[in-house]
Amino acid sequence: MLAVTILGNNSALPAYGRHPSAQIVTLQDHLLLIDCGEGTQMQLSRFKIRISKIKYVFISHLHGDHYFGLIGLLTSMGLLNRKESITIFSPPGLQEIIELQLSAAETRLPYPIEYNVLQEAGLLLESRHYTLRCFPVEHRVSCWGCRIDEKKVLRRILRKKAVDRAIPAAFFPLLQKGEDYQLPTGELIRNEEVTEAGDSPASYAYCADTRYLPELIPLLSGIRLLYHEATYLQDDFEKAAQRYHSTTLQAATIARQAGVNRLLIGHFSSKYEHIEPLLEEAKQAFSATDLALEGVTYLIR
Amino acid sequence: MLAVTILGNNSALPAYGRHPSAQIVTLQDHLLLIDCGEGTQMQLSRFKIRISKIKYVFISHLHGDHYFGLIGLLTSMGLLNRKESITIFSPPGLQEIIELQLSAAETRLPYPIEYNVLQEAGLLLESRHYTLRCFPVEHRVSCWGCRIDEKKVLRRILRKKAVDRAIPAAFFPLLQKGEDYQLPTGELIRNEEVTEAGDSPASYAYCADTRYLPELIPLLSGIRLLYHEATYLQDDFEKAAQRYHSTTLQAATIARQAGVNRLLIGHFSSKYEHIEPLLEEAKQAFSATDLALEGVTYLIR
Repeated sequence: MLAVTILGNNSALPAYGRHPSAQIVTLQDHLLLIDCGEGTQMQLSRFKIRISKIKYVFISHLHGDHYFGLIGLLTSMGLLNRKESITIFSPPGLQEIIELQLSAAETRLPYPIEYNVLQEAGLLLESRHYTLRCFPVEHRVSCWGCRIDEKKVLRRILRKKAVDRAIPAAFFPLLQKGEDYQLPTGELIRNEEVTEAGDSPASYAYCADTRYLPELIPLLSGIRLLYHEATYLQDDFEKAAQRYHSTTLQAATIARQAGVNRLLIGHFSSKYEHIEPLLEEAKQAFSATDLALEGVTYLIR
Repeated sequence: MLAVTILGNNSALPAYGRHPSAQIVTLQDHLLLIDCGEGTQMQLSRFKIRISKIKYVFISHLHGDHYFGLIGLLTSMGLLNRKESITIFSPPGLQEIIELQLSAAETRLPYPIEYNVLQEAGLLLESRHYTLRCFPVEHRVSCWGCRIDEKKVLRRILRKKAVDRAIPAAFFPLLQKGEDYQLPTGELIRNEEVTEAGDSPASYAYCADTRYLPELIPLLSGIRLLYHEATYLQDDFEKAAQRYHSTTLQAATIARQAGVNRLLIGHFSSKYEHIEPLLEEAKQAFSATDLALEGVTYLIR
């Protein structure tokens, strides 16, 4: 299971109580922070998310509404005497910005930062439980999307049946992986007799900021939850194109054509006081759409 | 009259809903922003202060809790298509930090920034109505206080008496400045007969962050409202000294010995959930003390 908690759902100018882009993905024991607009550390505190649990940070691009909160968060981690390293993925240039500000404050953080520059599509992280991959999107500056895939989940053992067939418990981990069992008599017990399918793996993809980019569709195939920016309503599609942003209908089209399970739209323009019309419009093209709301956690089972 | 609106009253780590340092001083037609911690633009929006009115920014020092919100504010001013220049006073290094971040975003602001590096005590600004001066304080890095003084205010004309004495209206501006008037008969009308004293000039001084520094006392003489940091309660005076901060009693001692009218204490440590005990303690040494509370405007008449 994956979970995504939205900390900020607005575009450049903070407006109507909405904050710039930031979200937390819960990955087993630790957290991945995707983007970190100004005020993210206050939002983390407001929603009672422990910043010590953040192990990875993915910064999609170096527009301020996606990273101006990072230096404050890193500094606060230092004040809280963090020792564990943190890994940051970003386009080129972020390390220099962070180091210049630390140097101006004559501050040395008590923990190491591992900077990873996004340069080509591919695998960023692989653990026992999931992978994190990045892919380029198209915005005014170098900008990246990412997807997190849980690894193939284990089969569920039908315990009574397995015990009845005298399969030793020591073999259960292999049963979960789908293996058959051979009894001392030579008889083969097929895996399907004593297990059933586990949940299918969860997956999440994040696409912000980007112009409408049909090339993303094959990259998003099979995604369970897709976050796609929808800065504007459809009648502003020309402005969206000029500014390398997407509209509601464009986000919904990508979701439908990629065959994702659910769509979250966010990165709303500050021109909209009310965001419900964006949802209504997106639903016309893809009904399984939700608004990315700050403080809400979206579960991907 | 001057007015100070507190936007953030906390020290380094945001805590208990308190924000890092920032405040707005109202100067006739425009605003001076003193320090600009992370989230200042959201606080300005929350308290309905128009960012287009900010003409001057004074950054006391380059610790993040005093300036991490500046790049976001400057960027937002650009998105709002500001044309008017803005003047920033700060210790060395800020211009490089701002320009590096603008360059990473490939952003060119539509208005000019005039950077002024604080290097010695003295006059920073002088208008018809006030002066702004800076002076060094002592913190871990180069750090500056400032004071704003309204200029000598005009005498108030007792209109009926002046008209009765047949003083022509054209002479009234000179009456306001304190001059006597000679009638065509040669008779001298003394200024005090037809005017009364105007309000005495308002003045405000800001001292954060600083260790206890008695050398400030002569610089603060005659100040009507003094903001002095009081990061800690007195029982933490050793920690305060180590970290180049002040305690409540130290702030109150400076206020009393400088003979200021009122004292505002702020820059509270994140260790305190409740800040009332800091007020009680400061009042023991200087009764005319208030807590700097976010969203509150303190008038200096």
